[in-house]
Amino acid sequence: MDKPLKILHASLNNRVMVELRGGRGYHGTLDGYDVPHMNLVLKNAEELARGESTAKHKTIIVRGDNIIYVSP
Amino acid sequence: MDKPLKILHASLNNRVMVELRGGRGYHGTLDGYDVPHMNLVLKNAEELARGESTAKHKTIIVRGDNIIYVSP
Amino acid sequence: MDKPLKILHASLNNRVMVELRGGRGYHGTLDGYDVPHMNLVLKNAEELARGESTAKHKTIIVRGDNIIYVSP
Amino acid sequence: MDKPLKILHASLNNRVMVELRGGRGYHGTLDGYDVPHMNLVLKNAEELARGESTAKHKTIIVRGDNIIYVSP
Amino acid sequence: MDKPLKILHASLNNRVMVELRGGRGYHGTLDGYDVPHMNLVLKNAEELARGESTAKHKTIIVRGDNIIYVSP
Amino acid sequence: MDKPLKILHASLNNRVMVELRGGRGYHGTLDGYDVPHMNLVLKNAEELARGESTAKHKTIIVRGDNIIYVSP
Amino acid sequence: MDKPLKILHASLNNRVMVELRGGRGYHGTLDGYDVPHMNLVLKNAEELARGESTAKHKTIIVRGDNIIYVSP
Repeated sequence: MDKPLKILHASLNNRVMVELRGGRGYHGTLDGYDVPHMNLVLKNAEELARGESTAKHKTIIVRGDNIIYVSP
Repeated sequence: MDKPLKILHASLNNRVMVELRGGRGYHGTLDGYDVPHMNLVLKNAEELARGESTAKHKTIIVRGDNIIYVSP
Repeated sequence: MDKPLKILHASLNNRVMVELRGGRGYHGTLDGYDVPHMNLVLKNAEELARGESTAKHKTIIVRGDNIIYVSP
Repeated sequence: MDKPLKILHASLNNRVMVELRGGRGYHGTLDGYDVPHMNLVLKNAEELARGESTAKHKTIIVRGDNIIYVSP
Repeated sequence: MDKPLKILHASLNNRVMVELRGGRGYHGTLDGYDVPHMNLVLKNAEELARGESTAKHKTIIVRGDNIIYVSP
Repeated sequence: MDKPLKILHASLNNRVMVELRGGRGYHGTLDGYDVPHMNLVLKNAEELARGESTAKHKTIIVRGDNIIYVSP
Repeated sequence: MDKPLKILHASLNNRVMVELRGGRGYHGTLDGYDVPHMNLVLKNAEELARGESTAKHKTIIVRGDNIIYVSP
């Protein structure tokens, strides 16, 4: 398995920070992902826009297209 | 089945929030989707632009390309 | 058949609203489409730019790439 | 044959209007196209930028990528 | 052979005008191309930015991605 | 093996500079990558925005999509 | 072999100019490339932003995505 996937896999059920294009990010518990799109499912996610908390989501599917980075 | 699809599938016939690039969103009942594009069909959808309701659609096909997230 | 296609198919010969990126839309009779690009053929289409009617087309092929949504 | 291609095919040797992203368009005689890119060849094409004629081309290959619509 | 390629092929060793997104163009002798990317090789190419000559290149490989049109 | 991959491979466990579209970069130890996306895993990464250090990440998965260059 | 690749291949170990979207360029010795992405490896590369030298890299992998042209 490629290293980026291995890191995603090892991050399941842990909190991750996901940053998207356009100054938006999500902080939540990684509940799943798909390959090769890197669409993510986050639980108890907090949305951050330019550093400020703007919304909370119990569950959210984030499309991989807009992701800049995922940090466990 | 990958987790993002599993979550979409479990959301069928439930209300979801779909946010698109460009500050627009749709709140509606998920009636279907396709793979791998993540095009969605929403019923009784309300369009939101920067937080304000701007239109209503009995049925709408939203292209997956522009989606930032789907939240059940 | 996936739900988004089923809805498109069921909309053949009916009026649909197609909204594109960049504030432009088309209101016309759906005469056909292709898969997976979602290029559409509309008949007697009215072009709308930011809500105002800007042109009419007896027949128009709209590329799927720029579509945000199709609403029957 | 899918409907969008059928319409393109039926437009061969006829005048078409092609509008591109960025406010530019071409009015010319459709001399050919390819699939699935929808690259077009136009003859005796007039370039229009925001409604004004800006150039003429005896022959021009227009890449499909930038096309918003083709209207026969 | 599709018509757009046929026109490119017939333009080998002839002067062509290539216009790119972003207001830039190249005028040069078409020395080759590839399929399906439409990357081009031009010889004795003059770069034009918003109508003014900005550089000359003995040989240049222009990526197809950014091309709006090629005109023989 | 293609040269770009060979260079990436030879950079494993070494510090690399990764520059992304939008004026952002990461300086870290290359821990892995995938093919063909060029998604990267960096360890002990420092985020740089327009030359200034803006964050630190023990581990980060950087999507290949946004990369302009990687420099060992 | 397609002509664009033939030119790239013939440029190995020679100085090339690579211009990217966004007003940035690299001048360096072509050490390798891959197909079909056109990712390039440059040695002793000088980064140019809007005509001015902004950085030097002993080795750099430039992603093909952002390339406008390569000129030997």
